Amino acid sequence: MSKGRETKESILDAAVQVASRLGFTGLTIGQLAEETGMSKSGLFAHFRSKEQLQLQTLEHARTLFTDAVIRPALSVTRGEKRVRELFDRWLDWESDALQGGCIFVTGSIEYDDRPGPMRDALRADQQDWDDVVTTVVRTGIATGDFRDDVDAELVAFNLQSLMLGYHHSARLLRDDRALTHTRVAFEALLDSLH
Amino acid sequence: MSKGRETKESILDAAVQVASRLGFTGLTIGQLAEETGMSKSGLFAHFRSKEQLQLQTLEHARTLFTDAVIRPALSVTRGEKRVRELFDRWLDWESDALQGGCIFVTGSIEYDDRPGPMRDALRADQQDWDDVVTTVVRTGIATGDFRDDVDAELVAFNLQSLMLGYHHSARLLRDDRALTHTRVAFEALLDSLH
Repeated sequence: MSKGRETKESILDAAVQVASRLGFTGLTIGQLAEETGMSKSGLFAHFRSKEQLQLQTLEHARTLFTDAVIRPALSVTRGEKRVRELFDRWLDWESDALQGGCIFVTGSIEYDDRPGPMRDALRADQQDWDDVVTTVVRTGIATGDFRDDVDAELVAFNLQSLMLGYHHSARLLRDDRALTHTRVAFEALLDSLH
Repeated sequence: MSKGRETKESILDAAVQVASRLGFTGLTIGQLAEETGMSKSGLFAHFRSKEQLQLQTLEHARTLFTDAVIRPALSVTRGEKRVRELFDRWLDWESDALQGGCIFVTGSIEYDDRPGPMRDALRADQQDWDDVVTTVVRTGIATGDFRDDVDAELVAFNLQSLMLGYHHSARLLRDDRALTHTRVAFEALLDSLH
């Protein structure tokens, strides 16, 4: 990796952490200058605008998420085992990857009523992610781990709901049963698919 | 209601709508002046600071939520019937009450990593709400509608998760199956309690 590319990566790593804590609307070139110790003009040369900074940070987060969650899950045997791997990695991402919790959850709430390129990008990302979850659930039907009449889209909705519930319970409520509740609810959901 | 009290109420109604669309961090005296056509100095006289405006808006939203959701549910017979009423009213609140979706969901995400009076107030509100849901589920166990070994706290977690999933699916993804998924998942959850 070139020096310039490395610098950009490390700026984007910092930007993902800032957006995770303060939201994308809290991610400004000024705030990022404070976090990284770089000059505002240096950062401005990289991003040109606040919106470009936000969009590139989102794209970087997507790469991190793909490496941490999607790729490992797809390397596991198709079927229930893969669904479990996907859920475990996703839960790790929600709980450990970022200081301020899942950046996609934060972004989704911030932009659902703000039309523009960020909302479009977030919506496209979340639709792609919904497709990935649905497809992985379908491998469980195809292998016979789950019943034939399982509604994979509904299961994907349930999994997304549980993860949002975990985020809410763990981060806002600081409820120490958050992880247990999420895991027990996940097992109950899987049970209902057999 | 006095004229002054009426004015304050209508300002707070507008403030709840703004916060619902732009978040509490987007709710400023300047923004509210734009929405209501009132002068900034007039509004400043009512609230004194941005934080006071945010805290009083949250308090007003809590009153609206209590009137729209909690009070009607508590007026219904204890047991499963009350759980259904609570869920229906809550879902109505999420989908219809505010232009920008549930203000508590928005606030929770904005403040989970921002310590201060707003986070404290939001956390206290959400813990109270979690208690209400858990207590209503327990009436279903007490009346024999649900099994004795049902974990009411886990059910409350599941209900909150579904509602967050609905918010995500309906508002960010604009998925027209959002309501159906939420209702089907709710019925499956209730089924599992019998």
